[in-house]
Amino acid sequence: MKILGIDPGTATTGYGIIDAPSLSSLPRRGEGIRERSNHGIKLLEYGCILTDKKLPAPARLLEIHRDLTKLIKKYRPQVLAVESVFFYSNVKTAISVAQARGIVLLCGQQHKLVLKEFTPLQVKNSLTGYGKADKKQVQYMVKQLLKLKTYPKPDDAADALAVAICAAGKSV
Amino acid sequence: MKILGIDPGTATTGYGIIDAPSLSSLPRRGEGIRERSNHGIKLLEYGCILTDKKLPAPARLLEIHRDLTKLIKKYRPQVLAVESVFFYSNVKTAISVAQARGIVLLCGQQHKLVLKEFTPLQVKNSLTGYGKADKKQVQYMVKQLLKLKTYPKPDDAADALAVAICAAGKSV
Repeated sequence: MKILGIDPGTATTGYGIIDAPSLSSLPRRGEGIRERSNHGIKLLEYGCILTDKKLPAPARLLEIHRDLTKLIKKYRPQVLAVESVFFYSNVKTAISVAQARGIVLLCGQQHKLVLKEFTPLQVKNSLTGYGKADKKQVQYMVKQLLKLKTYPKPDDAADALAVAICAAGKSV
Repeated sequence: MKILGIDPGTATTGYGIIDAPSLSSLPRRGEGIRERSNHGIKLLEYGCILTDKKLPAPARLLEIHRDLTKLIKKYRPQVLAVESVFFYSNVKTAISVAQARGIVLLCGQQHKLVLKEFTPLQVKNSLTGYGKADKKQVQYMVKQLLKLKTYPKPDDAADALAVAICAAGKSV
């Protein structure tokens, strides 16, 4: 099962695509994904869609839509994983992220991907076993589970991979 | 010049399409649009895209994208007019509106519409001459300027028409 994890934003949209094994080979309910090996999760690609700051929002959103469409056509994932809850002290940032998030959800629906949403707490809990884990701990687990030599960079791509891995675990 | 005004929302996206005369026949700078007749502004269509509450967000966003695309293909507007500033006490509502707004901006960009954004204050000021006008006053001016027999309903459609009329006036 191919999973596309996304961390949306108008300036930077992180993405991570993994291939997770079929459900039967994944850990049983109640057994954290971290407690086993990486369960055969394979990293296909990760990175960021960066848009030009000088461009107005509609042009940037179109870029995100185009690049995501290309990624989906290339890897044909079945699942789209994104974080579900927002809390921003800055309303302007929240609006900007949510606009990009709308594009991500649209793209998923246009290609009939199944949407899986998780709270940041669920993602952290799934990867580290601790809902209040810090960024570094989550990134460490992403690195371990995907057998990467270095930490995945930038942060938005690492976050996208984390939510994709969470979706793989939560499918059990 | 055809203008598509939009009041975005995941549940209800109001739209209003008007045909405004060329710039030269519009009022001079400093002269409120309300001070003359309707300047030959012609109403083409208004209404709402209503999406099913039971559907998940991606399906609803896809519906908005499809219906807006149809409208744009039917009327071929040159300008997309939307309100620019959000302030919501409820973060969940703000996110939902902004996700739909992302779809609206994307649609505009996909069809090369010029985006015109206005604050609620600008819209109210343009239509009534008073930035703190209430909803009813704005709706009254929409009705007068478009020579409608009744108030345009529902409110989201009226708001969409208001921002479209504002864009017609502000082009001067």
